[in-house]
Amino acid sequence: MTLEIRKILDMNAFDVSQKAPAGQTLLKRRLQNFGTASVLFYRTPIEMVRARGAWMIAKDGTRYLDFYNNVPSVGHCHPRVVKAISDQAATLNIHTRYLIQVLDTYIESLKATLPAHLDNLLLACTGSEANDLALRIATQCTGKSGFIVTETAYHGNTLATTDISPAALKRRALPDHVVAVPPPSRAHFNDAVAEGFATAVADAVATLNQRRHGPAALICDSIFSSDGVFSEPAGFLADAVQVVRQVGGLYIADEVQPGFGRTGECMWGFQRHGVEPDMVTMGKPMGNGFPMAGVAVRSSHVARFCEEVGYFNTFGGNPVAAAAGQAVLDIIREEGLMANALVIGEQIIDGLRTLRKAFPTLADVRGTGLFIGIDLCANGDPARPDPGLTTAVTNGLKDRGVLVGAAGKYGNTLKLRPPLCLTAEEADIFLNALEDTLAECSRS
Amino acid sequence: MTLEIRKILDMNAFDVSQKAPAGQTLLKRRLQNFGTASVLFYRTPIEMVRARGAWMIAKDGTRYLDFYNNVPSVGHCHPRVVKAISDQAATLNIHTRYLIQVLDTYIESLKATLPAHLDNLLLACTGSEANDLALRIATQCTGKSGFIVTETAYHGNTLATTDISPAALKRRALPDHVVAVPPPSRAHFNDAVAEGFATAVADAVATLNQRRHGPAALICDSIFSSDGVFSEPAGFLADAVQVVRQVGGLYIADEVQPGFGRTGECMWGFQRHGVEPDMVTMGKPMGNGFPMAGVAVRSSHVARFCEEVGYFNTFGGNPVAAAAGQAVLDIIREEGLMANALVIGEQIIDGLRTLRKAFPTLADVRGTGLFIGIDLCANGDPARPDPGLTTAVTNGLKDRGVLVGAAGKYGNTLKLRPPLCLTAEEADIFLNALEDTLAECSRS
Repeated sequence: MTLEIRKILDMNAFDVSQKAPAGQTLLKRRLQNFGTASVLFYRTPIEMVRARGAWMIAKDGTRYLDFYNNVPSVGHCHPRVVKAISDQAATLNIHTRYLIQVLDTYIESLKATLPAHLDNLLLACTGSEANDLALRIATQCTGKSGFIVTETAYHGNTLATTDISPAALKRRALPDHVVAVPPPSRAHFNDAVAEGFATAVADAVATLNQRRHGPAALICDSIFSSDGVFSEPAGFLADAVQVVRQVGGLYIADEVQPGFGRTGECMWGFQRHGVEPDMVTMGKPMGNGFPMAGVAVRSSHVARFCEEVGYFNTFGGNPVAAAAGQAVLDIIREEGLMANALVIGEQIIDGLRTLRKAFPTLADVRGTGLFIGIDLCANGDPARPDPGLTTAVTNGLKDRGVLVGAAGKYGNTLKLRPPLCLTAEEADIFLNALEDTLAECSRS
Repeated sequence: MTLEIRKILDMNAFDVSQKAPAGQTLLKRRLQNFGTASVLFYRTPIEMVRARGAWMIAKDGTRYLDFYNNVPSVGHCHPRVVKAISDQAATLNIHTRYLIQVLDTYIESLKATLPAHLDNLLLACTGSEANDLALRIATQCTGKSGFIVTETAYHGNTLATTDISPAALKRRALPDHVVAVPPPSRAHFNDAVAEGFATAVADAVATLNQRRHGPAALICDSIFSSDGVFSEPAGFLADAVQVVRQVGGLYIADEVQPGFGRTGECMWGFQRHGVEPDMVTMGKPMGNGFPMAGVAVRSSHVARFCEEVGYFNTFGGNPVAAAAGQAVLDIIREEGLMANALVIGEQIIDGLRTLRKAFPTLADVRGTGLFIGIDLCANGDPARPDPGLTTAVTNGLKDRGVLVGAAGKYGNTLKLRPPLCLTAEEADIFLNALEDTLAECSRS
């Protein structure tokens, strides 16, 4: 069986080569406005009109339990974030070339969650911008130009970050300065994930040296979201990081997906692995939907980078972003969202493992906190990924009012990332909907 | 006399190699938080606490008339934009993978201001992202990799856009695939600006061909802001665009600075030159401070680009951005801001030309609408740019409660970009403050 490698924008996607069905005027307008770049979920895209907490409400009145969207991480339209944005937007919204108290207070709150050696924070608007900047700092500070990524990694949409995103490249190969390694999964490395991943990284270092690039950095999403969610055994990153460090390369923790408490145990995904990154990039949930992102980095690296270019981002670190970001940090702490993510995440994983007994197609269940991946495979055989079933389940869950996504090299991993405020009752709604969906799929 | 070329982040900048003076605790915190990447205005940075209309208010109570900031273009904290952001943030804030009415309504409003052949709009969060994407589309659609820019151009802070931004590069030369030409100024081309600029672009095309890159695109800020503001004679871009088109290259209009009515006569800077771009990039004032940006482009180019990669931006085109953007378009139209920019801009330019009689150091006054550049030169001699005086005037205006900026290859151009809602009285406040400042500078 030849397995087709699936690209990230094709996951659970509406086929834009189709015309909009009659009566679907908003879909028709979108296709006219975005053209081939229309990226829409589901065979029949959903028109959304509002959202609150873990729920999104469609134009037709359908309520969807959101198990997909990891940006509104403290809950859709959290009133405290909305108030922070509204109040600050009405007071002052300007760039960082003036001093603004709310900004430095926020940066200090954020730095308090990070290793002390990352004493500077450069603020941008998107994870792509943060990663683009981190790559350039790594190149500048190491004098090397090679990067090591995982084979289904996604790190952004700029030129530089697309080059290190195998999951985005539809036709062309990775450029010469980028080497991909398998993700740190038991499927690849059995019970020696740490050792196997480190060996793969060492091989990649050798390849980059042969190509005369040398390793500027290993960059990993600490939860390996687009690779299919790999979290266990905690600690598996440490050996690979050591390999890169020994040859003068850096380790960049891409926390755009796992950061801000989603893994439950820790504020940042890398903390589960007992490693200290040279840079931490962050984005998506940072402002619960307000466009903001950042790079935490040593001041010595910033100084070196600024000799050549410097960095200024017009919208990055504006006081509205700072107010939104501060609200997110306060909510995570005061509402105990990390502890909640851990408890509810365990409830979901337990439920999935129980379901697995009845539905062996749930070949593997992985994750930590509220970041969970489920491999769907024919007869539960890891060698027989079933992207068709994954699509059917994703659409079946939608029909039952639950939103999920897909990931992985073959698109056969269900990806769950509900808001961190999810309740036990909401978790049960998902588990019941999944059971119904799997039952239906196994009948058909 | 050897003239030092000034870099964009050094214009009117606080020297970060200094320590914060005693008592300047917020400055000290900023330097600790951003490190060498702290980009702050003035010898003594200002702590801002609020802003409204054309005015910014500092912590010490000083009110500053804002003649610099071109992001809050319809006025700081415009209540209608604030309400649009607040209402939408409380209702729904999510990416474009669902259908959302407010987004397509906004895109259609925006497209109505643009040439009809630019039928797709790809939304991003920053001008840097928009330009980064435009460069990639140009490369993909022409099969060529070279870019032509002006010699003090600034197009963004990503890897790809820094490469085409001579104003940002402190030490290294432009890369091989980028050729810089002089800006279309009378200083370079006398009375044959259009012909001279076109000849320079033709030479750049030849250079790119020699280097085996070929011209993918000519990209210009239509008001040449960082080059020093060049607007006359209207129409001067057309010949150069024709030169690039004839050899299969594209013309990208970078409207991040002149767009959204600032030039008074037209919604977009390129319209003053009677040319139709292959792509239009936009950002800064698009959401009056809400981080948003975009690329207007032919659907055929988007289709070609999507064969290779595709484009999705998590925060790009979210409904809060759409609501903010719609409010900005509505305000520009309903408050007659373009007509106001034209009238008040003429008042300022007339006033500056009168002042020039008393102060010949005002060597040249240029601009259209509320985008104005003033060259300061010793004895008014264009061959003797005076960046020292420009710094003195910038700081002197600050002491009189007016914020302006600097630009140009030698940093001797005062750059004026007040909000489009500026009143005649506010224009006079500026003119009087400038007269006082120049009088003081000529005494010292």
